[in-house]
Amino acid sequence: MGGHFISFEGGEGSGKSTQLRRLAARLSAQGVTVITTREPGGTPGAEDIRSLLVEGEPGRWDGRVEALLVNAARADHVARLIRPALTEGKWVLCDRYVHSTLAYQGAARGLDEGELRHLHAFATGDLWPDLTIVLDVDPALGLARAAGRAGGEARFEGEPPAFHKAVRERFLRFPGVTVIPSDAPVDDVTERVWAIVAERFGL
Amino acid sequence: MGGHFISFEGGEGSGKSTQLRRLAARLSAQGVTVITTREPGGTPGAEDIRSLLVEGEPGRWDGRVEALLVNAARADHVARLIRPALTEGKWVLCDRYVHSTLAYQGAARGLDEGELRHLHAFATGDLWPDLTIVLDVDPALGLARAAGRAGGEARFEGEPPAFHKAVRERFLRFPGVTVIPSDAPVDDVTERVWAIVAERFGL
Repeated sequence: MGGHFISFEGGEGSGKSTQLRRLAARLSAQGVTVITTREPGGTPGAEDIRSLLVEGEPGRWDGRVEALLVNAARADHVARLIRPALTEGKWVLCDRYVHSTLAYQGAARGLDEGELRHLHAFATGDLWPDLTIVLDVDPALGLARAAGRAGGEARFEGEPPAFHKAVRERFLRFPGVTVIPSDAPVDDVTERVWAIVAERFGL
Repeated sequence: MGGHFISFEGGEGSGKSTQLRRLAARLSAQGVTVITTREPGGTPGAEDIRSLLVEGEPGRWDGRVEALLVNAARADHVARLIRPALTEGKWVLCDRYVHSTLAYQGAARGLDEGELRHLHAFATGDLWPDLTIVLDVDPALGLARAAGRAGGEARFEGEPPAFHKAVRERFLRFPGVTVIPSDAPVDDVTERVWAIVAERFGL
């Protein structure tokens, strides 16, 4: 595959969407063909599955159902958007991907991480990003930011502090991901993201 | 668990719903507490997932996504309806269950059966029926019957003959399931179903 696959990870309100959009703009300005997408979602079918996941009360789904729905959406997204784009040499920037599943359904909801990795392999042919950037922010600050916007992931925003703490701690322990503190000024975060991407891919 | 779990399997128009309803009535008349349900579906969440599966064009989902959605629905159904009912000593009669997944997404769509069994174990804690009855009918006859009713599984009814042949042949080869030809008069099928259930559970 000719393209590159970069995922942005982090808790609610960590600035993923903003930083992803800024990185896409800068890559485009350099002549790179970039696709920006998000999970769960990214294709018509996966967005339909997303609606099931993000609507309704906390407790609508238990962790096991949630993990299967997330992987169903991801299987569609990878087969119909991400893999074809990479094959055509495009860059794919994705807001959330497999590390979110391991953090939310694994660490926070308590599902076995080995089972979740097996599920990911089944759903995607074991497609992992070339680079994963974790934007790290204190959950209290992130949730305060997230509360101020529409269209968020309300079901997770309603979870207790211990849930968000478990998510954050799991994100910080993944080997091979790049962690950037995102309580810094937003332009500083953008510069750090760019420096990492430029170095990693030789831009 | 005190109850018993019986699944009815077979192609479109094989008479599963009719036979299931008749068996439930006869069991109830004997004083057994019976729950009748169906897959995909059976709980509010699983019925929402069912809508995604049975609506839309053939080709809306590939086999892998379909398998993950079916298992998401089943995980909810088992956790919130089937397992609690069995624990309370009730009998559960279910229209389709795991053998349909192995036949439709496995044999007909070509997914690896070992992977599907692994997925089933993850979704349900590896809950299998105590008795599985396959109602066997020639697909041409079954589809003609199915075409005459509303609310069917239109996405599968639109699949080509080779698809339905693969499903039928897989149903006939499962070890441990009871196959009943269902091109016989419907009352004869009902009597055969009853004879098998009565013998199996000592009624």
